[in-house]
Amino acid sequence: MVSTSLKKECSEPEPMRNIKLTVEYDGSRYHGWQYQENALSVQEVLSKALKRLTGEDIIPDGAGRTDGGVHAYGQVASFRTASSIPADKFMVALNTFLPDDVSISSSTLADDSFHARFSAKGKHYRYQILNRHTRSALYANRVWHVREHLDVDAMRQAAGYFIGHHNFKAFCASGHQVKTFDRTVYESKWSQDGDLLIFDTKGDGYLYNMVRIMVGTMVDIGRGRFSPRVIEEAIASGERNNLGVTAPPSGLYLMEVYYD
Amino acid sequence: MVSTSLKKECSEPEPMRNIKLTVEYDGSRYHGWQYQENALSVQEVLSKALKRLTGEDIIPDGAGRTDGGVHAYGQVASFRTASSIPADKFMVALNTFLPDDVSISSSTLADDSFHARFSAKGKHYRYQILNRHTRSALYANRVWHVREHLDVDAMRQAAGYFIGHHNFKAFCASGHQVKTFDRTVYESKWSQDGDLLIFDTKGDGYLYNMVRIMVGTMVDIGRGRFSPRVIEEAIASGERNNLGVTAPPSGLYLMEVYYD
Repeated sequence: MVSTSLKKECSEPEPMRNIKLTVEYDGSRYHGWQYQENALSVQEVLSKALKRLTGEDIIPDGAGRTDGGVHAYGQVASFRTASSIPADKFMVALNTFLPDDVSISSSTLADDSFHARFSAKGKHYRYQILNRHTRSALYANRVWHVREHLDVDAMRQAAGYFIGHHNFKAFCASGHQVKTFDRTVYESKWSQDGDLLIFDTKGDGYLYNMVRIMVGTMVDIGRGRFSPRVIEEAIASGERNNLGVTAPPSGLYLMEVYYD
Repeated sequence: MVSTSLKKECSEPEPMRNIKLTVEYDGSRYHGWQYQENALSVQEVLSKALKRLTGEDIIPDGAGRTDGGVHAYGQVASFRTASSIPADKFMVALNTFLPDDVSISSSTLADDSFHARFSAKGKHYRYQILNRHTRSALYANRVWHVREHLDVDAMRQAAGYFIGHHNFKAFCASGHQVKTFDRTVYESKWSQDGDLLIFDTKGDGYLYNMVRIMVGTMVDIGRGRFSPRVIEEAIASGERNNLGVTAPPSGLYLMEVYYD
C-alpha cells in the first residue's frame, strides 16, 4: 500500500498535450466567441463539449474574438489536456457533442509553445453584401443587405488604399487599447457574384471592428457619400470622424488564421 | 336612406384582383408550405401577413407543396384580394410583416385566370450535397451532408437517364394519387463547386418526393451500391423496390416555376 502510494506521488504528472482545433460556426445565435456571463458564446459551447468529452474544465483560447453575429469558417482554438484521446479524434468526438451551428473541421497535435491567438501571424476575413432591392430569406443573418445602388468601381479603388503597412487608428473602434495601430494589409479586394458583393482582406492582424469599419466606409463611398480618397486621408490623419458606418456583423466571416 | 341602401345593394361588388407573388424561404423552421393544424407552415405566415396588410382572410395558393425543411428561392403564390393596394407594393409591405426566413422577391398583377399551381408549366429544382468527411456549421439545414466518397461520373451518367418523357412511377412516394405518372424532364445534371455537389433538374412537373428519390438513388449509385443502369430499369419497370434512399429535405430548393 505504502509503496504504491509513494510511487504514485513520485510519478511524473500526466503530460499536458496542446491541441489545435479549426472551428466553423454560424454566429447568428451567439454573443460572439468570447465567454461572458448570461449570454451564449461559441467559447462556452466548445468548453462544455470538451468537458463532456474529457471531464476536464477547459477554456479554449481563440485566435480572434469575433463579435456577436460574426461567422467563421476557420476560427482556430487551442487548449491543453491531460486526456489520452488521440489529437485527430477530437474532431469527430466534439462534432457529436456540439450544436448544429458549431463544427470542428480539424484537430491536430500542436507544439507545446503554440497558442491560437499569440502564435497567429495573419488572418483572412471575408465580408458579404447582398446588393439588391429586396431582402432575402435565405441570406438573412449571412450578409449585409444594402438596397441602394453601389458604385463598385469606386469601392474597388478605395479598397486599394488599404494595402500596405499603415497606422489604422482611424479604422479602430474607440476604447480599444493596443500597443500599436500599425498593421500590414496584404490583400483588400472586391469581387461580384450576382447580387453578392464580396470583400476579401488578408493581413498580419486587425484592430477591433477594423474590417467592419473598412467595409462601412467603402459602402458609403459606393453610395457616393465620400470620394475613395477619404481612405487615404483617414490613414494619414488617424481621425475616425470623417468615416462611414460600421458594417453589421452578419456579413463578416473569419475565413482562415495563418501560422508559421 | 332607402335610396342609399338600394344603391349600395345594386352596386357592383369590389372587383377582386389576382396577385402573383414570388416567395423565398429558408424552410428549416417550417413544416412545409401547406397549412396544417398545430404546425407552422410558410402558407400560414404568409396568410397572417396578408391579413395584417389587407384585413382579408386570404389563403394564398402555392405552385409547389414543398415538404418540411425544403427551401425555395422561387416559390410562386397567387391570391385574390379586394384591397386597393397596388400590386407591386405587396412585395415591400409583406416583407415588413413576414419573419426573416420568408421574403417576397416580386409581386405583380396576374390575369384573372392565373393560378400559381394549375397554371404552372414547369419547375426548376436544385439539390445540394456537401460531400466531405466533417459536417459544416454554416451549411447545417442547407445541404445533405454525405461523408463517403461519391463517384460523380457514375452519378452524371445516372442523371442522363432521367431526361425525356417517361413514366416516373418508380420515383414517386407511395400513397400519392395522381392521374398519370408521366412527366417530362428537360434537364438533369450534376455540377461541382468545391465540396458541394449540385443537382439541377427542370421539367414539366414532379411527383411527390420525386426529386428526393432521384437524388437518393443517384447517391447510392455514387456510393457504388447500384449501377447507373438501375435508373433505366426502374423507369421501365415502374417498381420502386430496387431504388435507394429518399434524400433528406434540407438539400432541396425550389428555384423557379415556369408559366406561359
